[in-house]
Amino acid sequence: MKGIRVIDMTQALSGPFCTWLLGSLGADVIKVEPPGGEPARNTPPYKDGVSLYFESVNRNKRSIVLDLKTPAGVDALHKLIATADVLVENMRPGVRARLGCSDEELERINPTLVLASISGFGQTGPLASQPAYDIVVQAMSGMMSINGPLGGPATRVGFSIGDIAASLFATIGILQRLYERDAAGAARTSHLDVSMLGCQWACLENAFARFLNAGIVPGPIGSRHPSMTPFETYPGSDRDFVIALGGQQDWHRFLSCIGLPELGDDPRFESEESRLEHREALWSKLAEHFEREPAQVWIDRMLEQSIPCSVIEDVQSIAASELSDAYQAFSAVRSPDGRERRFVRNPIAEAGVEETPAPALGEHTEELLREIGAKI
Amino acid sequence: MKGIRVIDMTQALSGPFCTWLLGSLGADVIKVEPPGGEPARNTPPYKDGVSLYFESVNRNKRSIVLDLKTPAGVDALHKLIATADVLVENMRPGVRARLGCSDEELERINPTLVLASISGFGQTGPLASQPAYDIVVQAMSGMMSINGPLGGPATRVGFSIGDIAASLFATIGILQRLYERDAAGAARTSHLDVSMLGCQWACLENAFARFLNAGIVPGPIGSRHPSMTPFETYPGSDRDFVIALGGQQDWHRFLSCIGLPELGDDPRFESEESRLEHREALWSKLAEHFEREPAQVWIDRMLEQSIPCSVIEDVQSIAASELSDAYQAFSAVRSPDGRERRFVRNPIAEAGVEETPAPALGEHTEELLREIGAKI
Repeated sequence: MKGIRVIDMTQALSGPFCTWLLGSLGADVIKVEPPGGEPARNTPPYKDGVSLYFESVNRNKRSIVLDLKTPAGVDALHKLIATADVLVENMRPGVRARLGCSDEELERINPTLVLASISGFGQTGPLASQPAYDIVVQAMSGMMSINGPLGGPATRVGFSIGDIAASLFATIGILQRLYERDAAGAARTSHLDVSMLGCQWACLENAFARFLNAGIVPGPIGSRHPSMTPFETYPGSDRDFVIALGGQQDWHRFLSCIGLPELGDDPRFESEESRLEHREALWSKLAEHFEREPAQVWIDRMLEQSIPCSVIEDVQSIAASELSDAYQAFSAVRSPDGRERRFVRNPIAEAGVEETPAPALGEHTEELLREIGAKI
Repeated sequence: MKGIRVIDMTQALSGPFCTWLLGSLGADVIKVEPPGGEPARNTPPYKDGVSLYFESVNRNKRSIVLDLKTPAGVDALHKLIATADVLVENMRPGVRARLGCSDEELERINPTLVLASISGFGQTGPLASQPAYDIVVQAMSGMMSINGPLGGPATRVGFSIGDIAASLFATIGILQRLYERDAAGAARTSHLDVSMLGCQWACLENAFARFLNAGIVPGPIGSRHPSMTPFETYPGSDRDFVIALGGQQDWHRFLSCIGLPELGDDPRFESEESRLEHREALWSKLAEHFEREPAQVWIDRMLEQSIPCSVIEDVQSIAASELSDAYQAFSAVRSPDGRERRFVRNPIAEAGVEETPAPALGEHTEELLREIGAKI
């Protein structure tokens, strides 16, 4: 997205992750921060005094500090916006207007600007003014209600799916609007209004399809698949592993390769639906068998037959693995203090493209003010 | 994305969700299926004989049945591809070429085609040929390792984040390449190679940032935030609710509104870092206090002070709520059997745009063959 300039008036995660993606695809991302910096700069843990939470999602950006309580600050912001293609913000609805960026002002400054707002509950609607964080949206959307141990309490998804899903949908919406503006020749673009709540519901499409049309209320089911089995965790003699049998066509081949062909004659297990009905009995039979050998023995036998399966890795085992190298999982950036930091890579950006580290607060203020001919 | 034609050679979830998004943004999506239909048509639960799993993510598409084992089938596919902008496929690497769509053939048929492949482990690399399903990628990527009850076993995220994240990244990549082709005038686009594994790592950016730069190995932490508190589940006298205190600026206001101002004098809880250090003690103090009144009492008090919080909803309570109406969470489609079905809406598509139901197998075969002038 070279040649596309993005003004980033976001903080925390949902906005910065979106603008990081755009930056890693080549856009020129300018992060506008208040004099104290955005709050995420103060989120632990720190490395050499810098928040890792902040650094990870603010790569490939420049930082300009503007005090939007002063006319000079607002004037500089307006000049910046005049040079931009996209403005992304994740402030509480209403705050944007108070910072000199009302719909009318933006229309006057840059009538072809793609404006994207990310919020908990949208720009309008009964909850628009309510504050939101990932866990709140996970609780309110039903996301937590289907996550956690089988029969156990609703549990937050262990990463910030509320923020990240909104980031990804916002990025899709921004690219779509840029396409329609610049390729399809749309006269103007509408305000992209992304709610974290709506994005969680979209992620839960299957759970809602089942409830709305078949009355099934899903709850936490541990590592099970709602409608297929074997498709869950099993114990080896040393560690757990997962199996994901995709369909009926693999059933007998699976039983052969693990040395249990006789289960193929059991009518309880003969079809996908009958296996679901008797899943406890099936799980016990398989688990008892698997506990006799280490996980890797079973994995090797199943992979030889193209049965999807894996041991359960963690971030440490992955970082140490040849796999993360082979797939170029991480990119190294030289941090402001001169040391190397490593973060995950945008999986759809070209591998091998160097990323720039998250900017120090206001690192590019002077450079950008010169560029737009503004003073503060 | 009106005027953009997408050939959809995908099955299950990662591909169909991506092409559903494109279709709901206006693209003309043509699903190419083998004579028996794609396997997801046989995934329970069914409603009136049709798989809800399939129906949810195959809205806004047309279906053409082509037997790609016959020359006439391949010829028709080639004619279709010649009319298209995008080809999305999620077959095992290598299968595409066997079905008459090698890189060379695609180059000859349609040199400006945007080709997007979604797979478990990428088109090249040590695991390229391995089969993948959501749970396998969740296990292999570290996703499961940070999800689940505090101190408990690694647990699959309760929805198919492995597939959905890949869908969202693929959609981003497709839109980016279309932009660069049609607006930025790129002479040609590269093959978009989306691996579910890489997309999971991207979702885990914070976990990897912490491990790679500060040596912290995260594990399942239930509903806790890794670096902030109070930011988790608490018990009311009747049901659980979540609180998400974003930063130090809200701490004393929070304590006041719940009637515990004296905790503000406790040095263990005075800063974000000290609260993290003493989070067990803090949780117990707060939980003991909250257990005296119903959840809604606390929610009301906190929302009045703009403290982010919520009770934990499930799909049933959401479907019955005014909230899902107010936010137009669902769209209704008339199914092939003439009945109404309801599914979640694409949260960034215009509200109120009618969706078409998932097509019956081969419903549009004749119409499309006529359109491209092919016979099978």
